[in-house]
Amino acid sequence: MKTHVVIALPDWFPELDPTQQCADDEAKLRFVIGLAMRNVEERTGGPFGAAIFDGDGRVIAAGVNRVLPETCSAAHAELLAMIGAQRRLGRNRLNGNGGRFVLATSAQPCCQCYGACVWSGIDELLIGARAEDVMALSEFDEGPLPADWIGELERRGIAVRRDILRDEACEVFRRYASLCGPSY
Amino acid sequence: MKTHVVIALPDWFPELDPTQQCADDEAKLRFVIGLAMRNVEERTGGPFGAAIFDGDGRVIAAGVNRVLPETCSAAHAELLAMIGAQRRLGRNRLNGNGGRFVLATSAQPCCQCYGACVWSGIDELLIGARAEDVMALSEFDEGPLPADWIGELERRGIAVRRDILRDEACEVFRRYASLCGPSY
Repeated sequence: MKTHVVIALPDWFPELDPTQQCADDEAKLRFVIGLAMRNVEERTGGPFGAAIFDGDGRVIAAGVNRVLPETCSAAHAELLAMIGAQRRLGRNRLNGNGGRFVLATSAQPCCQCYGACVWSGIDELLIGARAEDVMALSEFDEGPLPADWIGELERRGIAVRRDILRDEACEVFRRYASLCGPSY
Repeated sequence: MKTHVVIALPDWFPELDPTQQCADDEAKLRFVIGLAMRNVEERTGGPFGAAIFDGDGRVIAAGVNRVLPETCSAAHAELLAMIGAQRRLGRNRLNGNGGRFVLATSAQPCCQCYGACVWSGIDELLIGARAEDVMALSEFDEGPLPADWIGELERRGIAVRRDILRDEACEVFRRYASLCGPSY
């Protein structure tokens, strides 16, 4: 059998509505925090959600953490959103045609997804919970990043905005801990 | 349609031989450099190959760069090898059962695959070409890494060894440039 990779999203995952727009940063974060919380409530993966939006605020693709259900340490929300968007648009660099693309994520990307952002063709990264929130509220670790991780992205044309709906984003981790206990 | 990710390896990709052993570091690098060179010759992706080996030197899974053919900026050799091995063994951390696992890669991992290594459950990272070789011989960029990227891995239990068959590994990039020209 030829080796290949297949990663599925959970059964409850919403069909994307092409008419729905998340015009501002808060609307984008509300959408991905909602995905993260639903993933926790349904027990279909870790407490993380992410989505790619185009310049008009339309969702191109979205993802949630699927590490345990898919037996795949790489199946993070951000990576699934980026790959889904690239497939949908038929470009391995989302902004390769001059368009503008935003990745919104419920929590600061880990070291893997941080690196994946660099190649994905996004112009903007919107973050809910900070790394220190994630580590204070859960046993998840962000892994090793460059000391000036924001500056490294900005020098590559990716603007970073943090603390968008930070309290709501933190609530996902509290709910995860209350459902799954301290030693999930 | 439910969003999901499917990434295929090229048609020529070898069936893994469960009796074959790559006992030492050079044998492991020879195997992955061979995959990288074949990927170049067949024009089925970028000049990179990688594989996961168990403690006896048996190949668990392997990958080559598939970014352009699969329209997926994340489809790097190392990521495909790690995911393939996790699926095959049924564990999202390869060494979660106490076994010992090695990732051999024809060139230093980029910022994405560097981060992915941290979560994959490998104990050792074997590298052929250095980042400076890749950048001197091609237009590929490794992206932003922590200043002490080797130390960060070693503190997390991942030993790093470099410059294994470095000349042969560099040859893959020379061949890629001669086939694809300076502005691929």
